[in-house]
Amino acid sequence: MKALVYYGPGKKKWEDKPQPTILKATDAIIRITKTTICGTDLHILKGDVADVTEGRILGHEGVGIVEETGEAVTNFKKGDRVLISCITSCARCVYCKKGMYSHCVNGGWILGHLIDGTQAEFVRIPYADSSLYPIPAGSDEDALVMLSDILPTGFECGVLNGKVQPGSTVAIVGAGPIGLAALLTAQFYSPSAIIMIDSNENRLSIALQFGATHTINYEQENSVQKIMELTGNTGVDTAIEAVGVPASFALCQSIIAPGGTIANIGVHGKSVELHLEQLWSRNITITTRLVDTVTTPLLLKTVNSKKVDAKKLITHYFSLNDIISAYDTFEKATSTKALKIILNSDL
Amino acid sequence: MKALVYYGPGKKKWEDKPQPTILKATDAIIRITKTTICGTDLHILKGDVADVTEGRILGHEGVGIVEETGEAVTNFKKGDRVLISCITSCARCVYCKKGMYSHCVNGGWILGHLIDGTQAEFVRIPYADSSLYPIPAGSDEDALVMLSDILPTGFECGVLNGKVQPGSTVAIVGAGPIGLAALLTAQFYSPSAIIMIDSNENRLSIALQFGATHTINYEQENSVQKIMELTGNTGVDTAIEAVGVPASFALCQSIIAPGGTIANIGVHGKSVELHLEQLWSRNITITTRLVDTVTTPLLLKTVNSKKVDAKKLITHYFSLNDIISAYDTFEKATSTKALKIILNSDL
Amino acid sequence: MKALVYYGPGKKKWEDKPQPTILKATDAIIRITKTTICGTDLHILKGDVADVTEGRILGHEGVGIVEETGEAVTNFKKGDRVLISCITSCARCVYCKKGMYSHCVNGGWILGHLIDGTQAEFVRIPYADSSLYPIPAGSDEDALVMLSDILPTGFECGVLNGKVQPGSTVAIVGAGPIGLAALLTAQFYSPSAIIMIDSNENRLSIALQFGATHTINYEQENSVQKIMELTGNTGVDTAIEAVGVPASFALCQSIIAPGGTIANIGVHGKSVELHLEQLWSRNITITTRLVDTVTTPLLLKTVNSKKVDAKKLITHYFSLNDIISAYDTFEKATSTKALKIILNSDL
Amino acid sequence: MKALVYYGPGKKKWEDKPQPTILKATDAIIRITKTTICGTDLHILKGDVADVTEGRILGHEGVGIVEETGEAVTNFKKGDRVLISCITSCARCVYCKKGMYSHCVNGGWILGHLIDGTQAEFVRIPYADSSLYPIPAGSDEDALVMLSDILPTGFECGVLNGKVQPGSTVAIVGAGPIGLAALLTAQFYSPSAIIMIDSNENRLSIALQFGATHTINYEQENSVQKIMELTGNTGVDTAIEAVGVPASFALCQSIIAPGGTIANIGVHGKSVELHLEQLWSRNITITTRLVDTVTTPLLLKTVNSKKVDAKKLITHYFSLNDIISAYDTFEKATSTKALKIILNSDL
Repeated sequence: MKALVYYGPGKKKWEDKPQPTILKATDAIIRITKTTICGTDLHILKGDVADVTEGRILGHEGVGIVEETGEAVTNFKKGDRVLISCITSCARCVYCKKGMYSHCVNGGWILGHLIDGTQAEFVRIPYADSSLYPIPAGSDEDALVMLSDILPTGFECGVLNGKVQPGSTVAIVGAGPIGLAALLTAQFYSPSAIIMIDSNENRLSIALQFGATHTINYEQENSVQKIMELTGNTGVDTAIEAVGVPASFALCQSIIAPGGTIANIGVHGKSVELHLEQLWSRNITITTRLVDTVTTPLLLKTVNSKKVDAKKLITHYFSLNDIISAYDTFEKATSTKALKIILNSDL
Repeated sequence: MKALVYYGPGKKKWEDKPQPTILKATDAIIRITKTTICGTDLHILKGDVADVTEGRILGHEGVGIVEETGEAVTNFKKGDRVLISCITSCARCVYCKKGMYSHCVNGGWILGHLIDGTQAEFVRIPYADSSLYPIPAGSDEDALVMLSDILPTGFECGVLNGKVQPGSTVAIVGAGPIGLAALLTAQFYSPSAIIMIDSNENRLSIALQFGATHTINYEQENSVQKIMELTGNTGVDTAIEAVGVPASFALCQSIIAPGGTIANIGVHGKSVELHLEQLWSRNITITTRLVDTVTTPLLLKTVNSKKVDAKKLITHYFSLNDIISAYDTFEKATSTKALKIILNSDL
Repeated sequence: MKALVYYGPGKKKWEDKPQPTILKATDAIIRITKTTICGTDLHILKGDVADVTEGRILGHEGVGIVEETGEAVTNFKKGDRVLISCITSCARCVYCKKGMYSHCVNGGWILGHLIDGTQAEFVRIPYADSSLYPIPAGSDEDALVMLSDILPTGFECGVLNGKVQPGSTVAIVGAGPIGLAALLTAQFYSPSAIIMIDSNENRLSIALQFGATHTINYEQENSVQKIMELTGNTGVDTAIEAVGVPASFALCQSIIAPGGTIANIGVHGKSVELHLEQLWSRNITITTRLVDTVTTPLLLKTVNSKKVDAKKLITHYFSLNDIISAYDTFEKATSTKALKIILNSDL
Repeated sequence: MKALVYYGPGKKKWEDKPQPTILKATDAIIRITKTTICGTDLHILKGDVADVTEGRILGHEGVGIVEETGEAVTNFKKGDRVLISCITSCARCVYCKKGMYSHCVNGGWILGHLIDGTQAEFVRIPYADSSLYPIPAGSDEDALVMLSDILPTGFECGVLNGKVQPGSTVAIVGAGPIGLAALLTAQFYSPSAIIMIDSNENRLSIALQFGATHTINYEQENSVQKIMELTGNTGVDTAIEAVGVPASFALCQSIIAPGGTIANIGVHGKSVELHLEQLWSRNITITTRLVDTVTTPLLLKTVNSKKVDAKKLITHYFSLNDIISAYDTFEKATSTKALKIILNSDL
């Protein structure tokens, strides 16, 4: 089969690889019909994720069709259409039992990381019964690709952890795909204001189309001052960090109202300064989270009942065979305006 | 009347002051029967709390007897025995309606800070109906002095924010009066382990008597290593910071289990380093809080039903007239082993 | 002034009454600008509410302008535009401190019940600081009349108690004004389906316009069978009872999914049969509640940010002087299709 | 092997049966070391549980040693000591993912009910990875037998559903083994009062030894009147129904405070009268639940850290070979004072 293989920093090839086979009774083999590229894949290609070894097939998102199942798999059979979760859950460890699939001692984020991933014609999914989701008949499968990772990430790490409520005020720092996923899913709870902060005018204009009530270009405006004006000088109830750098986390600390929550989504490469000398008395909550995909069943229902239009995040379509071009487009997001790209298999 | 008056850094006098009078219809005048000294009072005397002006009567804890009430006060009448909350709550602002009395726009922590306090023979309490609590007949009033500040602070900021649960593991960094108050109230929820960390052997030994399951002298042992041993190498579910310096907050970050909560109680004078490069993916919650005293009714019930022996925190008794000596004893806590001191009025 | 006065079952008069005056320091006198009629007022006029005595001015909803305040009132001053809550909250009793204003020992539902109400040119509001809400500039005051009672009732008793969630399924039994208020506010949480059940085709058609995903005319269809079809034979996650008769509560028991919640709003005049022999093992929750109006600040934000169009509930407008005709229209709701009626003062 | 086999109402035999074998890859065979008898077993023997067929081995509680595992089982291996949950959880269905193991579409309560159970020398456990729990070294295995069913039932259905809190008041109607299990686990949360109600003086006296603060013999005292006296005329915050008859559920309705919770544990054979005409406005919650055993890991920690002495429930010990005598003792609980009986295997 064809697959996108990592060969060290900056090097990837779309090449022939052996088709995966069942290794354990709990495995399933999935024929990929649609996959996509994540910002994390770009980090891997920069060499930032040290435990991805050369020869690894990348990708942790996608939908497909069950090709084969191990004998302990009972939820799925050959021919079933399935959504692949970016998080593999064994459903039997202490973390899975608590709903913290991200910390599964037998799984977690392993696809396209510690085992071969979904940017290929076939993929092996361990613990298939608890790591795949059946696709209801009549679903829009392009939309469902957004449920492998980006939508649950924005929702769980940003919206749920951030305790967005009817009538509350929300600021989202970073209008990239993840920030926009938080924006889309924050609207499940009818906050009175959602303020998007970025320096990319295209993304801010998309944010307005996606339901933001206000946008701030932090290079052109004083973000703190404007948010204080918009919130009657109290700050926001929820600040969602969707970038992963010290400056954006610092901004969140400056705009959070007493009693508010800073929900971190960003992947941080270094420590940040926490202003406890100001925040110790302000009744603040700060949360971090790696997506658990525990809300996938909920999100499936909201997508299929049209409470959220997940397809809005898709800007480009490519054939899976053209994945190298798709990476180019995704890497040059500023000029191509790419958010999420659907890669369709020709099989 | 006699009162303890602040005259700038390092200067205090027990001297005659005019007896307070009703200024607003919602005020009450309380004759103090018992009061105590808080670590915060020492901070004020060091000059650390800039908005305390010279001439201010200190103190924000105590019990007493209603002497006089403004005409809008309906919950209390002359002669009633009352507990004074360290937090004044107007009960009508946006924060009070949310239970965040600490941020009351008309009150909050003002006693012995922005208005005259309780280390005196009489004190004026604004918004008396919502800032005083009736003392049930037969209560031990020494114990109830612990409910003005220290017990709700340990409970709300440490135990409730820290989400202590049956069977969970708790570490408390700092075995001073506040850390010990967290230790006492954490036991309401039957955690399986409570580990106290300090360098003062006397306080660690008190912690064991108060119900700690393990103690660590951080000057003699490697705290992180020992906690990892005690927790099967996962860390604790709840880490309570009860000191207020960067090193103790750093320790909390090193010992928190995935999915755990760091509950800050300490008053911090400078910023700390937050290791988001490690914690971003660990599903951690960090909370800060100034005590709201919203749990005072609950704590009254637990004290009176003997679910917690709040008197354990009391090490010394003085006459209110000897408050200067009491401050000496409290300041030299290492040698005097003072935790909380009861000052009894002779009136 | 003019007022609508109750004179025993079936008897009411729009007549001259003395203008109310401040009786306590915490009172305010409000000049009514808009009020409305509640189904409860009809119950009173039938003689169903025994503790309403002859001579009582009816009405517990409305907006107005502060005319005078007692000296302990600090949140409001003459000339302020205010929303009147149907629930009077003293903010200082054990229930108010818990957010259960409905059970306020000094207030609760007293307006137009135990003290004179809002269907008059002026009304005295006890505990004005905690029973009135300031109206933000630019608000649509017709919409805000819906916040005195009907919107918080549908939201608190039905939607919040019923734990409506993104993607969940909801059935509302009864499409009268209260059921429709639950329908409007349920959408704050983006459930995947909201099924309205009634026998009045006009109200079912309004429900569809208001956002119901399905309607059932229980006289023409088998409600249980249809709901089971719509929910894949599991039942609904939330069943909201908005009628107050045994049959509608029975229906809720028949359609609730395992793990679901039956939230009762209806005012019941007799006991009902609870099928514990079936439900004991089904992990069901049943809730009852008299509206607390604790969510009024939240609802003000959602109305003013256009997350809910509360004006949709208004079908008729009358002058306050024509209140007798307005009652006629409201009583004959089946033919007049009345939901909520705005009564505008001519003052 | 030897097993206790049901042969229709009133008939049971301790006889030879074939040893169970692995049927599916997710199965394990457990050699029983300790088991016990449940009130439910008596119901089955009365013929009350229609779907138990003749030839069925009874029993759904116990601890044992893994004899053999299917090839998909990864958490356990031959020789491991394990706790058997009364609820079988597949960990992959919609209910298991929500923590509602009791409603598992592939499991739930099936042991000694729809498949052969634990009152035997060996038992087959389906979905072993998620239906067994490893026993920590040094555990008291007699105590752990209480964790198969009775302790999680009292805790989940009574205490957790009943929202017992520090300082709150609790009434438990029924002082049988289940009511006593609720009593033991309610103390995890330090309520200020726990009132036990029964007519059996022996059980009431045991309740006092187990930590009840008050007892009421409902045949000798007016339960409602006494509870109102004990609670300052407001009723209890939590009422736990642990009998399963209309009279005890009626009592719960009469003693519940506004804002309180009635948590049903009892297995009801007929419907009850629900006084909505009184309760509709009292902000009450009523819950039902079949034990999910989702708290087994928590309970293991509380037992092993000695926060609860589960062995207190054990009154008698028999050899498993003497199970017929043990049933006699258990059936005549009034005279034998039996609560829980440990049956030790001789293997």
